[in-house]
Amino acid sequence: MLQPLKKIKVLDFTRVLAGPYCTMLLADMGAEVIKIEKPGTGDDTRGFGPFQNNESGYFMFLNRGKKSIQLDLKNPESISLLKELVKESDVIVENFRPGVMEKLGLDYETLKEINSGIVYASISGFGQYGPYSQRPAYDLVAQAMGGLASITGHPDQPPTRAGASLGDMSAALYTAYGIMVALFHRERTGEGQFVDVAMVDSIFSLLESNVMRYTVDRIVPERIGSRHPISSPFDIYRAKDGYIVIAVANDPLFSKLCAIMNQPELEKDERFNTDPLRTENVEELKVIIEEWLQAYTVAEAVELINKGGVPSSPILDIDEICEDEHTKVREMLIELEHPTAGKFKIPGNPVKLSKTPAVIQSPSPLLGEHTEEILGRFKEVKAEI
Amino acid sequence: MLQPLKKIKVLDFTRVLAGPYCTMLLADMGAEVIKIEKPGTGDDTRGFGPFQNNESGYFMFLNRGKKSIQLDLKNPESISLLKELVKESDVIVENFRPGVMEKLGLDYETLKEINSGIVYASISGFGQYGPYSQRPAYDLVAQAMGGLASITGHPDQPPTRAGASLGDMSAALYTAYGIMVALFHRERTGEGQFVDVAMVDSIFSLLESNVMRYTVDRIVPERIGSRHPISSPFDIYRAKDGYIVIAVANDPLFSKLCAIMNQPELEKDERFNTDPLRTENVEELKVIIEEWLQAYTVAEAVELINKGGVPSSPILDIDEICEDEHTKVREMLIELEHPTAGKFKIPGNPVKLSKTPAVIQSPSPLLGEHTEEILGRFKEVKAEI
Repeated sequence: MLQPLKKIKVLDFTRVLAGPYCTMLLADMGAEVIKIEKPGTGDDTRGFGPFQNNESGYFMFLNRGKKSIQLDLKNPESISLLKELVKESDVIVENFRPGVMEKLGLDYETLKEINSGIVYASISGFGQYGPYSQRPAYDLVAQAMGGLASITGHPDQPPTRAGASLGDMSAALYTAYGIMVALFHRERTGEGQFVDVAMVDSIFSLLESNVMRYTVDRIVPERIGSRHPISSPFDIYRAKDGYIVIAVANDPLFSKLCAIMNQPELEKDERFNTDPLRTENVEELKVIIEEWLQAYTVAEAVELINKGGVPSSPILDIDEICEDEHTKVREMLIELEHPTAGKFKIPGNPVKLSKTPAVIQSPSPLLGEHTEEILGRFKEVKAEI
Repeated sequence: MLQPLKKIKVLDFTRVLAGPYCTMLLADMGAEVIKIEKPGTGDDTRGFGPFQNNESGYFMFLNRGKKSIQLDLKNPESISLLKELVKESDVIVENFRPGVMEKLGLDYETLKEINSGIVYASISGFGQYGPYSQRPAYDLVAQAMGGLASITGHPDQPPTRAGASLGDMSAALYTAYGIMVALFHRERTGEGQFVDVAMVDSIFSLLESNVMRYTVDRIVPERIGSRHPISSPFDIYRAKDGYIVIAVANDPLFSKLCAIMNQPELEKDERFNTDPLRTENVEELKVIIEEWLQAYTVAEAVELINKGGVPSSPILDIDEICEDEHTKVREMLIELEHPTAGKFKIPGNPVKLSKTPAVIQSPSPLLGEHTEEILGRFKEVKAEI
């Protein structure tokens, strides 16, 4: 099967999370991703847990399907070799702090002279320009300065980081889309270009209507826990042995919920008989619902409520979603065999393409595994340069 | 300037958030996006606030740069007209519940017979196949069943929804990447295909190493608030007038923080003298830091801590990030003029392409504004069909 990005060669200078996830998305679609790693230790994430037979699960997930060469970027000989590779490459991705690639002599302005068709993507915390561009980037900072932390959490609690590194992951996704747009343009015109994506811009871009609430209405959105801003009861509720979602977005659904709870009087209650009133009195309504829910387990409550015609779902823990039949059928958790780590499971690609599905070409590379294969043509290479 | 997706025609059957954000990402890059709306009311979000001169800010943001035609999809004549449009289109995007497009006679299997090169993307809550595919999709459900809610929030608090609709937004991003991969493949082979993306798969895909902690180590990640799982102090802390981030990822940074706090004894304190110990005693350390922070405002503390060489940032509220100079310089908030709403600001595109930057071709369309322009060739059209 022809993979869509077959024959696309990516020089991958990225480390840790945002950059490697972006190039993983390209490798899944058939690109040849050549990861340039520092001699001896490689990508820092080779040292991040969890470990299986001393191999990092973190690294193995993000670097599946890639090749690895070891190169000391402070050695001028390495830079010369890299420039040979640049001539035959299609894409470069890096996520150093702005300015680092320039110091190495590997910035876009320099490399486009060697290969004018190159698509060169830089991912950083605050972007390549702008007053904060030199600030250090951490996911927590991106979530905090991008506005997401201020609206995540409960009203009486501090601002809260979403539990996964969304600053990195969203920047990776925007960059993958940007690279594909740039490759499409190059396919039609031969022209390469520079792609600049910031983690903080990416987080800001996920805020959807929260931004317009401010720009149009001058309302500053606040933390409202898990509830819906304008419909109630639409929230996370405590049942006997855990939490569930109940999603009532209109009066007919509320009527059904009252029937399920066997409390038809609630429907006429003047605190609750319209959606705006239910939202105004949302805390009182939550107490009533959670009192009722104390008689049911999560499984019982979800079944009972759905059966009554009201959307309800469990809140899955990571083990539950990993073991779920739906996850298996959707190939969202797939087994990989690594030469030293053995078999283990990593997330699949969520984009299900009918003709050219994502394929993991190989497990993650050993450090420098492909140095000779890739650089041997240019010179006699030792294990590292 | 040649926009990269110029001459790409997108038939857009999407409503509300995930689908419209995906096609917005295509429109920003030059695609002609033709939004098919139900006669009379159109996309539900035309009725969602905030409003400016009766125009929805929600709708205007997500549908900028698109065209609108009104068509009653239950009218066989509309379906015939749509099939004429399909012949000359490149991409179809829809986010109905699985099965709806088939009932309308507009599913991929039917339409590929008319246009074998069509790239047809479906976004749904649980995907086009799998045991839950028929379940109703809400962002809260996707966050709950995708595993994110279980790890977002504080340890003594319920699972928590991230404050923006990340199920929708991430599905939109994965689909935009998938459509671009499929278009790239089509450019090389002429072959179209079907793209299936689920909100719950998308959320699961954002969990990064949390998944491997379970699959490799059988650890079920729990809610840990905003702190870092293995480094401390790396969290959100309360200062005199609000919250800040302090990011200490190693011993030398902790030493600097102790100096900034003028409490050098903490560095030798046997509760805190290694990163694992600081993480073990993270709550005690937080109390000490927050006591110290009570003497400083957010602005003072962030300046003082950064000056001392330790990364620190404020937590920006939505108004603060919107008004920030960095946001302005990065063109992350741009002014648009709408014929009836007037001027207002919406988020820009975070992917900064040097040669073919995102361009907003027009404000969002009035309902049915382009019905005659687009369908007039095929027949005498009335305002709606």
